Amino acid sequence: MSQNIFDDPTFFEGYRQLREGANFNDLLEQPAMNALLPPLDGARVLDIGCGYGRNCLAFSEVAQHVDGVDISVRMLNVARKENCAGNISYHEMDMADISTLPGSYDLIYSSLAFHYCLDFPRLMKDCHDLLKEGGVLLFSQENPITTCARNTDNRYVRDEEGNTFFKVADYQDEGERHVRWFVDDVVHQHRKFSSIVHDIASAGLILTDCVEPCPDKSAIKKLPGLARELIKPSFIIFKCIRKETTK
Amino acid sequence: MSQNIFDDPTFFEGYRQLREGANFNDLLEQPAMNALLPPLDGARVLDIGCGYGRNCLAFSEVAQHVDGVDISVRMLNVARKENCAGNISYHEMDMADISTLPGSYDLIYSSLAFHYCLDFPRLMKDCHDLLKEGGVLLFSQENPITTCARNTDNRYVRDEEGNTFFKVADYQDEGERHVRWFVDDVVHQHRKFSSIVHDIASAGLILTDCVEPCPDKSAIKKLPGLARELIKPSFIIFKCIRKETTK
Repeated sequence: MSQNIFDDPTFFEGYRQLREGANFNDLLEQPAMNALLPPLDGARVLDIGCGYGRNCLAFSEVAQHVDGVDISVRMLNVARKENCAGNISYHEMDMADISTLPGSYDLIYSSLAFHYCLDFPRLMKDCHDLLKEGGVLLFSQENPITTCARNTDNRYVRDEEGNTFFKVADYQDEGERHVRWFVDDVVHQHRKFSSIVHDIASAGLILTDCVEPCPDKSAIKKLPGLARELIKPSFIIFKCIRKETTK
Repeated sequence: MSQNIFDDPTFFEGYRQLREGANFNDLLEQPAMNALLPPLDGARVLDIGCGYGRNCLAFSEVAQHVDGVDISVRMLNVARKENCAGNISYHEMDMADISTLPGSYDLIYSSLAFHYCLDFPRLMKDCHDLLKEGGVLLFSQENPITTCARNTDNRYVRDEEGNTFFKVADYQDEGERHVRWFVDDVVHQHRKFSSIVHDIASAGLILTDCVEPCPDKSAIKKLPGLARELIKPSFIIFKCIRKETTK
């Protein structure tokens, strides 16, 4: 079972405050994800790690039906209160259990949740099986450059000329990474680029696009910390389709 | 036109000595590439950046015909002398000009040459057009983690606990990188991981596998410098196929 850090009260409150101010999600990751969305008129959509349900509500305006899945009851309580609609169903569920959902989705969407997944090959296979032929899997996760190092103290170093570098280590050693984010010991999974691509292809999904979002000047003006994204990317986005069977 | 550094006498001699001893190509990159090769019985093969022609000779033992392309006359002189066969044709050619070749290849192969390419989207399109339907493009290049930083002095740093890190910077800023390798000012092209994937897919190629080679213990014993590959990968390998048109 994936770690359910979002039900930790300290984490939950810290995360909620983060998302209310100018943040990396709204200024960097969400615009890049939105640009890759397929048309959703009349579509069946699954959002894995739906959190507050903001994207579910947006999808529900044109989609036929939206299933929002999250492991955190606290997050789903917000979703059901603030982002409900007649064609959205929220499910308290570990992403390891999505194969129990009805399937036939036109879009499976996931924003910054898959780096919590323990069995990525199985997740890709489950997504494949839950998609209609020609359906789209669009997901973002932490970039392997960001997740790789076990020691996350003082990630940035400056040289004598004042240039700033990001410290990378342990890249080939995939698995758990323990980071401090509002609370001690949030567990992320480090996977190599190549493993992600391999697992996508092995599941029978076709990789049609990939984006490492880069902030523009206006985003950096709103949130100066985004300038560090020019040094190394925090996120990576993959867009895949389920192959159509040749008749 | 790509830089023709291999015809620089100092570079040529340094590279030749490097390839004669225990090296990253033979212990790390070549075994990973070989493991991804498709069956070559009776195949038409193109090797882009064939260098000394060692792979062309190996392919020629089972392939029907092999075209070896390199920009360096010095490299091709070695190839024609040491690795010739009746079914190999060596061509002095910039990889920007491969669209002039006859095409209908079952395999397009390239070992550690594409990071010299100036127009990568066009290279992917040319490879697509030169492949038969169902044909394979297999290439290795420098890993974007390795190519990204403009300042390549003192790439590794140690923290107080003795852990070694690799310094990453300038990741989002694609383009020329000037490195010292036997001579000053060898020009590599930095491309983001996502851009490579995007360009592969945009050319109509399907990405079927990706590998970031990791040395095993026996390789590290032969060449202790390979241990640094556990910190960050030097290479990345992509395997793609040209879509078959649905009848």
